Amino acid sequence: MNLRIPGPTPLPPEIMAAMQKEMIDHRGPEFAALGKRIIASLKDICQTSGDVLLFTCSGTGGLEAAVVNTLSPGDRVVAFAAGWFGDRLAAIAEAYGAQVEKVVFPQGARIEPAQVTETLRGQKNVKAVLVTHNETSTGVLHPLKAIAEAVRAETDAVLIVDAVSSFLATEIAMDAWGIDVLVTGSQKALMCPPGVAMVAVGKRAWDAHQHAKMPRFYFDFAENKQWGDLGQTAYTPAMSVYFAMDAALELIQREGVDNVYARHARVADLTRELASEIGYELFPQPRDSSPTVTALKVPAGLDGEEIRRIAREEFDTILGGAQGNLKGKLIRIGHLGFAHEPEIQAAMDVLHQATQRARERAKA
Amino acid sequence: MNLRIPGPTPLPPEIMAAMQKEMIDHRGPEFAALGKRIIASLKDICQTSGDVLLFTCSGTGGLEAAVVNTLSPGDRVVAFAAGWFGDRLAAIAEAYGAQVEKVVFPQGARIEPAQVTETLRGQKNVKAVLVTHNETSTGVLHPLKAIAEAVRAETDAVLIVDAVSSFLATEIAMDAWGIDVLVTGSQKALMCPPGVAMVAVGKRAWDAHQHAKMPRFYFDFAENKQWGDLGQTAYTPAMSVYFAMDAALELIQREGVDNVYARHARVADLTRELASEIGYELFPQPRDSSPTVTALKVPAGLDGEEIRRIAREEFDTILGGAQGNLKGKLIRIGHLGFAHEPEIQAAMDVLHQATQRARERAKA
Repeated sequence: MNLRIPGPTPLPPEIMAAMQKEMIDHRGPEFAALGKRIIASLKDICQTSGDVLLFTCSGTGGLEAAVVNTLSPGDRVVAFAAGWFGDRLAAIAEAYGAQVEKVVFPQGARIEPAQVTETLRGQKNVKAVLVTHNETSTGVLHPLKAIAEAVRAETDAVLIVDAVSSFLATEIAMDAWGIDVLVTGSQKALMCPPGVAMVAVGKRAWDAHQHAKMPRFYFDFAENKQWGDLGQTAYTPAMSVYFAMDAALELIQREGVDNVYARHARVADLTRELASEIGYELFPQPRDSSPTVTALKVPAGLDGEEIRRIAREEFDTILGGAQGNLKGKLIRIGHLGFAHEPEIQAAMDVLHQATQRARERAKA
Repeated sequence: MNLRIPGPTPLPPEIMAAMQKEMIDHRGPEFAALGKRIIASLKDICQTSGDVLLFTCSGTGGLEAAVVNTLSPGDRVVAFAAGWFGDRLAAIAEAYGAQVEKVVFPQGARIEPAQVTETLRGQKNVKAVLVTHNETSTGVLHPLKAIAEAVRAETDAVLIVDAVSSFLATEIAMDAWGIDVLVTGSQKALMCPPGVAMVAVGKRAWDAHQHAKMPRFYFDFAENKQWGDLGQTAYTPAMSVYFAMDAALELIQREGVDNVYARHARVADLTRELASEIGYELFPQPRDSSPTVTALKVPAGLDGEEIRRIAREEFDTILGGAQGNLKGKLIRIGHLGFAHEPEIQAAMDVLHQATQRARERAKA
């Protein structure tokens, strides 16, 4: 099977092998050493002197942790959203009683730094700004560095970034760019099974945490950090995913983080190039197209879900579809984590053939 | 290594093998079939016609889900607690603003059904009753059936049961006993890696959910059920743990659930018998001793942590210690999940030898 969705991603053999380790005591010294190794390595990749907290949950759980640990009910929050995942982050803050002002960009468009500036200028009481780095639903990588600069120029609000599907695929210099909370999941560019979310927390976020009154227990930052400093976890961790992450981070160090970024850019370029060759148009502007997922417009008269079904049933290849109102109109090709040229070439060949079959059958 | 803590538990070879399955699309038909299989099987074991919801989190996360989906801030809650995990369940409700009346029993004692009756009699405005079935910290199995009967005789409050370390080791007839929410984790008697919590939800709990105003997003029951009915999950699941659970439930069906219960009882009996032979006393009364974890009093003059260190470093055997004020005073032997006579015999031999070594060194 060629799994080409934007996460979960296929597991490299070294990670498969790591998953064969027997369970150990999560309160013992072996786990503590493992936990400390993982945290130190993730801190390096985030380029932060802050803390890295790990929670057993999906990326969405990590985003909830970011929100409930830095805000109080009634706090004013500005959310920049350009799709399904931007909407979700805003919805989390709303569920916990924040006053969310949502600035919406069209699906397929990027969050414009100039509009970030305009929105925040002169606003004194904004407590948090919510941004999705890579909008997985539309294949758009928002210009995070410029967005963060715009935020930092205007406000001391906590900048919470959903980097679930961008982290480790493209550089994020958390401290230098002025990001306060950065969230990702194990099943994306980290090429591990899902189950663990990383929440990196900088000083401004810890300051906000002092006064944050949204209720929380499982996702509490302070409890998590207290155990994390010992390499342990407050509650029983998804241990097999920890084994996988430890192996993944060793692979990544061996490849070199910059090479990992370069590989993602290269494979994304190849995807777009092959898409163009088989007559598919990009959904976003080429400038904004993501290094981890390429969103393609389904040709007029065809149903994307039918093309995906043919790819799955007739070619054993799993392509991404779209959510909500875009369902059937986009095909998304995941190329993050354990992704290299041959799998992409194969997937795009399948997309070509499946599209031809769908077209022939539509005519018939 | 002989891992004899009360979870995570060692994985059987069939489950190790299941963890070697490559990632699949969590929105595709293969995962949907897997999810439906797991849910149907767990419903059978719970003996409920209600719903089984699965969340990617630890058991504590599952308990939080139970609380925040059935209660509103300010609601009156009665929590019966006899140790670390009873305290934790009460603390979750407090963190979300419930008015928690805690009825505390001594560590090592059981929750007395008569006191449950006395506490609840004539109380009209109790919204939930919190009970821990197996208090892992003290090795006590509380008499859940009698407790539930006492609760049901006095109140329509939602009965939330922490069955994290008892589920599947001893029968729980959720509907017949009148339990409304039943929580467990994948890493206990289910013999899988940690990462997924099961929350079984009955009719009374769904009714309470209609009016429950505690904030929630990741742990929302309604969102979870909507996807669960399709065999899917609202957010990306800890997929490798799902593969493990599917294999585990097949093993359990093959063994027969009643045989699984009988095996836990038999192995627990053996542990207590061997403990007595090597001069260890039970911490709880024999009547209350758990089928999943045996808590033993460390002999006077010795430090339990030192005995555990010797067992670990000199015999490659991991025994459980104790939490909080009991640390060093108890040794806990886990015998849940993939546990049979030979491992227990070996662990108790090690406990014997490690205790002798600790005693000799204490004298030296």
